[in-house]
Amino acid sequence: MDGRPVFLQTCTGDRNHMITSHSNPKIKQIAQWQARAGERRSAGIFLAEGFKMFQEAPEEWIREVYVSEEVPDREDLPPDMRKKLAATGFETVASGVFRKMSDTQSPQGILCVLERPRYSLEELLGQTGAPLFLVAENLQDPGNLGTIVRTGEGAGVTGIILGAGTVDVYNPKVIRATMGSVYRVPVVCVEDLCGTVDVLRGNGVRIYAAHLEGKQYYDSFSFRRGTAFLIGNEGNGLSRELAAKADCYLKIPMEGRVESLNAAVTASILMYEAHRQRRGKE
Amino acid sequence: MDGRPVFLQTCTGDRNHMITSHSNPKIKQIAQWQARAGERRSAGIFLAEGFKMFQEAPEEWIREVYVSEEVPDREDLPPDMRKKLAATGFETVASGVFRKMSDTQSPQGILCVLERPRYSLEELLGQTGAPLFLVAENLQDPGNLGTIVRTGEGAGVTGIILGAGTVDVYNPKVIRATMGSVYRVPVVCVEDLCGTVDVLRGNGVRIYAAHLEGKQYYDSFSFRRGTAFLIGNEGNGLSRELAAKADCYLKIPMEGRVESLNAAVTASILMYEAHRQRRGKE
Repeated sequence: MDGRPVFLQTCTGDRNHMITSHSNPKIKQIAQWQARAGERRSAGIFLAEGFKMFQEAPEEWIREVYVSEEVPDREDLPPDMRKKLAATGFETVASGVFRKMSDTQSPQGILCVLERPRYSLEELLGQTGAPLFLVAENLQDPGNLGTIVRTGEGAGVTGIILGAGTVDVYNPKVIRATMGSVYRVPVVCVEDLCGTVDVLRGNGVRIYAAHLEGKQYYDSFSFRRGTAFLIGNEGNGLSRELAAKADCYLKIPMEGRVESLNAAVTASILMYEAHRQRRGKE
Repeated sequence: MDGRPVFLQTCTGDRNHMITSHSNPKIKQIAQWQARAGERRSAGIFLAEGFKMFQEAPEEWIREVYVSEEVPDREDLPPDMRKKLAATGFETVASGVFRKMSDTQSPQGILCVLERPRYSLEELLGQTGAPLFLVAENLQDPGNLGTIVRTGEGAGVTGIILGAGTVDVYNPKVIRATMGSVYRVPVVCVEDLCGTVDVLRGNGVRIYAAHLEGKQYYDSFSFRRGTAFLIGNEGNGLSRELAAKADCYLKIPMEGRVESLNAAVTASILMYEAHRQRRGKE
């Protein structure tokens, strides 16, 4: 025993096999996945960076792990992190190469390739008698979508449903903003958002749209039964077609000259109002 | 009459005086102000870009207006925008130069230099018997701060108080994210946040901290009287020192494995809960 952590002896983390070239095919593949939604989709994967994202990743989703050369020697690496690295195995990458494969300005030195989970709407509808859904149409800002997934977990949503026009939920910036909630909140991507809303309604879910034409305040409705909130694009709100699918328009009151709130803030206020009411019931 | 809009004849928007050089001293000054908080502060100004930000700017705050050369000829320029441009005057800038002076990737072609407003805490405290404050400590993300100002206007806050460690509220990214609310929400920047919280309490304001150690849910408190919410840094929350100044810790319930919510989301949920309660009172 030379006192080095066990995983360095059992895993691929030795310097002789360190990836030192930018043209290594694995590195080139990661760079492509960072940049291209289509390539991530056809490979059925997504990327997650940073210690928290690695630590919270379900082990059965992890396909590959890359760590920057200085990471295995870090004395402040928590024991459970060492244990997980030992369990998953990993490849060591030279610092300069790692910086190139990372999507962040100050990479933490760990990146994993993960298998995408598959959720079906039917399954989610069958889980609970009073599901809570957030349906997003044409959301463009990765930070907004990530924040919605994160808040959605906090508020206990059953799932989040995204139309085809919304930013890729597996975009690295979205993944980062979810702060790990992407591992736990079912996200369903659908082609036909209007048709999906009809399916929800057919299953007893009431459809609420945050809409400028809403007259009744959001907190005057009861969200204790099956509920779905429709959230639209940052600049233009909901399409006329999808808005027409709502059972009710609701209004978030706004003082001053505010015309609308940020999309993630709107979603958060509604999801937490539903959570507040559902807590009250118990 | 050659049919051109009146303001083109009365203002400086003629091609003979168009700024075409990157080394024009005004252009160099704007570039410095875009990049440096200290220079904006010592000049007592801030910059705002885009049509909405120009349109909503109080005329008495506007010091200078720059428009990209193609803007005055745009047929879709609304009449009230033409009227305001005529009232304020403006300088025309060659497209390439405008792109350099802009902080955005797709500039709308209008930028103004505005005088900073001055608000005093005493004034705000005197305005209403039950003020509502949001106090932010060491917030780092410009989007979060801008979103808080925007939501703050919507929720009818009396003012927002920022400690010295928070991102500059006059940072161009913050200004953009306020969507114009920076013109209407009083923002007070203070050196000594703990001392300021003492002043608030001395004026009958109850101090609530969103804190991991909070045991009571946020919606179990009454925010109908004078209220201040303390919001901390994105990664580390509130400093021990400031948290100790709170009268109560409050808890936002979180399902799943969520440890905290995004700072702007936390602030929004609290401000809108206060608004909900205060509406109920009327």
